[in-house]
Amino acid sequence: MTQKMAEEIPLDPRLAADSIAIGRLALCEVRLQDDARFAWLMLVPLREDLSELFELSAADRAVAIEEISQCAAALRAVTQCLKINVGALGNIVRQLHIHIVARNEGDGAWPGPVWGAGTRIPYNETEKADLIARLRSALAMQG
Amino acid sequence: MTQKMAEEIPLDPRLAADSIAIGRLALCEVRLQDDARFAWLMLVPLREDLSELFELSAADRAVAIEEISQCAAALRAVTQCLKINVGALGNIVRQLHIHIVARNEGDGAWPGPVWGAGTRIPYNETEKADLIARLRSALAMQG
Repeated sequence: MTQKMAEEIPLDPRLAADSIAIGRLALCEVRLQDDARFAWLMLVPLREDLSELFELSAADRAVAIEEISQCAAALRAVTQCLKINVGALGNIVRQLHIHIVARNEGDGAWPGPVWGAGTRIPYNETEKADLIARLRSALAMQG
Repeated sequence: MTQKMAEEIPLDPRLAADSIAIGRLALCEVRLQDDARFAWLMLVPLREDLSELFELSAADRAVAIEEISQCAAALRAVTQCLKINVGALGNIVRQLHIHIVARNEGDGAWPGPVWGAGTRIPYNETEKADLIARLRSALAMQG
């Protein structure tokens, strides 16, 4: 498989506003949702003008499911959460993005979905830096 | 790739209660959620004792993303919906299952997620039979 270097693509400002880039995989930028209520990653495929998973090429879809799995396994390893939730919704922001969320009994939305639930609580800087460092380590990413 | 014939596996009774099997793909049983508010498919991988996408083998994951895409494209073709929502949550029922939901502005949960939103409204028999026939046709499945 040819491994094209990821290019910059425009990121929807609503995605950018609530999350922090923590690294890149072959297909996707990996972002941490800045919400201390849930350990929550977002994968943004570095492809323009897509809003549905099935609009990715077959080759990109094969990479996408591996990157989703890699991030989900890393998130569970780091958080020891009970369940991972994966979702590609896009009802509000159409740019294709995939949520990967660590869930636990009694968390702020349990057992419902996190999307649209309550109000985001930003991390404090120490928590955020610590979580990002642990996630990068689990994903074998450079800081 | 060896294409093992799908075997029967136990289906969680909570999944069985709210949905109807409409056919099988190589990896997954395809079920229609019996909820007239949303055109909503559920894919259940025919593998036992899994609750996370990343617990599927790499070969099964590659099939899973193709079956998700195939069902999502079929659902959009049949319903002409605005957006597809894909989700693998499992907070309530742990058996691995993937939701694929046709969404439109103004539907009963828009723009929020469908999971946990309001109360299911079963199809009447005519609507259900018609939708299943159109989905099977779009998925090139036999009745």
